[in-house]
Amino acid sequence: MNNIEICLTPKLFQQYTVDDKIVVIVDILRATTIITTLFHNGLNKLIPVKSLDEAKEYKKNGFLVAAERNGKKVDFADFGNSPFEFTTDKIKDKTLVYSSTNGTNTINIAKQAEQVIIASFLNLSSVSEFLEKQDKDILILCSGWMGDFCTEDFLFAGALSTLLMNTNKFSFNSDSVQVSIDLWNMANQNLSDYIKTIHQYKRLVDFGFQEIVKYCFKIDITKVIPVLDNDYLVELQ
Amino acid sequence: MNNIEICLTPKLFQQYTVDDKIVVIVDILRATTIITTLFHNGLNKLIPVKSLDEAKEYKKNGFLVAAERNGKKVDFADFGNSPFEFTTDKIKDKTLVYSSTNGTNTINIAKQAEQVIIASFLNLSSVSEFLEKQDKDILILCSGWMGDFCTEDFLFAGALSTLLMNTNKFSFNSDSVQVSIDLWNMANQNLSDYIKTIHQYKRLVDFGFQEIVKYCFKIDITKVIPVLDNDYLVELQ
Repeated sequence: MNNIEICLTPKLFQQYTVDDKIVVIVDILRATTIITTLFHNGLNKLIPVKSLDEAKEYKKNGFLVAAERNGKKVDFADFGNSPFEFTTDKIKDKTLVYSSTNGTNTINIAKQAEQVIIASFLNLSSVSEFLEKQDKDILILCSGWMGDFCTEDFLFAGALSTLLMNTNKFSFNSDSVQVSIDLWNMANQNLSDYIKTIHQYKRLVDFGFQEIVKYCFKIDITKVIPVLDNDYLVELQ
Repeated sequence: MNNIEICLTPKLFQQYTVDDKIVVIVDILRATTIITTLFHNGLNKLIPVKSLDEAKEYKKNGFLVAAERNGKKVDFADFGNSPFEFTTDKIKDKTLVYSSTNGTNTINIAKQAEQVIIASFLNLSSVSEFLEKQDKDILILCSGWMGDFCTEDFLFAGALSTLLMNTNKFSFNSDSVQVSIDLWNMANQNLSDYIKTIHQYKRLVDFGFQEIVKYCFKIDITKVIPVLDNDYLVELQ
């Protein structure tokens, strides 16, 4: 039996050891949803960067750059934070530098793990099927919101934990995993209604991003799994 | 409208400002349940201390001392961590020095708040009625388990948030509050079954503490509210 844990926000990451674990990075609204979309649309390589200064430096050197802060594209970037911008004609076989408010920081703190993969509702079953075959303990690392708990990442953690538990190859010893499973099973009875209670959902709908938010909760539209390879993300082969 | 927030573990406390808020300390298994019991049974004053060294020093100076680590009474103490030890004949009108694994640390970190009160299922409605009258924002501070999320404190936060929202004097802007309310409403359909899924519940039942754990989920057996007065806890008058 392999173990499942959930880290509710990067601020609690130091509570966990990850050297021998697979870390599953989650930032449903929106970094990991976008990163999944990028590789689904044929991106070759993603360079996650923390600061806007770094992103700007890459831009000067001719790289394509996606960068947002607080949900808005920064002025020098080629792309912002809408998954619909990254069409195949713009990104197929290319390298993209990517910086977001929460998600890319989360990727960087998990680097010492055995393996780091990127998950979202878009590739949920594919991630579960991959993990089932690895015989490794799992830490689901939620990006959260402003350092704190957010529902959308926790719901995803519950959805993934439910699938993993159904394989009979995993166990857990953690209240967060139990509660995430309970919440997912409750919310999933009417997911499109439940997500309306989410703080960040309401905020993004107020900004006019309803279609984007709906997209972020689409389940299993792709099989691709982005994976950290040294300092870059590539598609898991 | 006053605001409700929930801090899921003391490790996230620095995310919040509390200067003008009432902080509600929660450690259902078991510090705040025991502290509520102590004042219900007539204790005059409680001195929360962080380290066992401090507790030992008080003991040398003739104080009554309750001290546990990892659920077990430490050798020099008069009391351990069972609420049933603190009978009226032993503690009425007395001063007690108290140190526990989680709970007393949580009390100490919240000292800069406008007011700090101690809550448990035992005094749930009384706490809600008090808060309703104060016209202050509320932070429910969960002690958690080993620095991480625990279900029992979160369930209590959901129970209290539900009561506060029913007064129509509070609002919230937080995913933790929403999810705690949802979890409480789900769990409360069969609370005695739901608590069996809690990690710390299972651990304490394995130690033979089933009756103690059941007691910790009894709702509204007292009206007393312990409150921090400088460095001591006393009964709110």
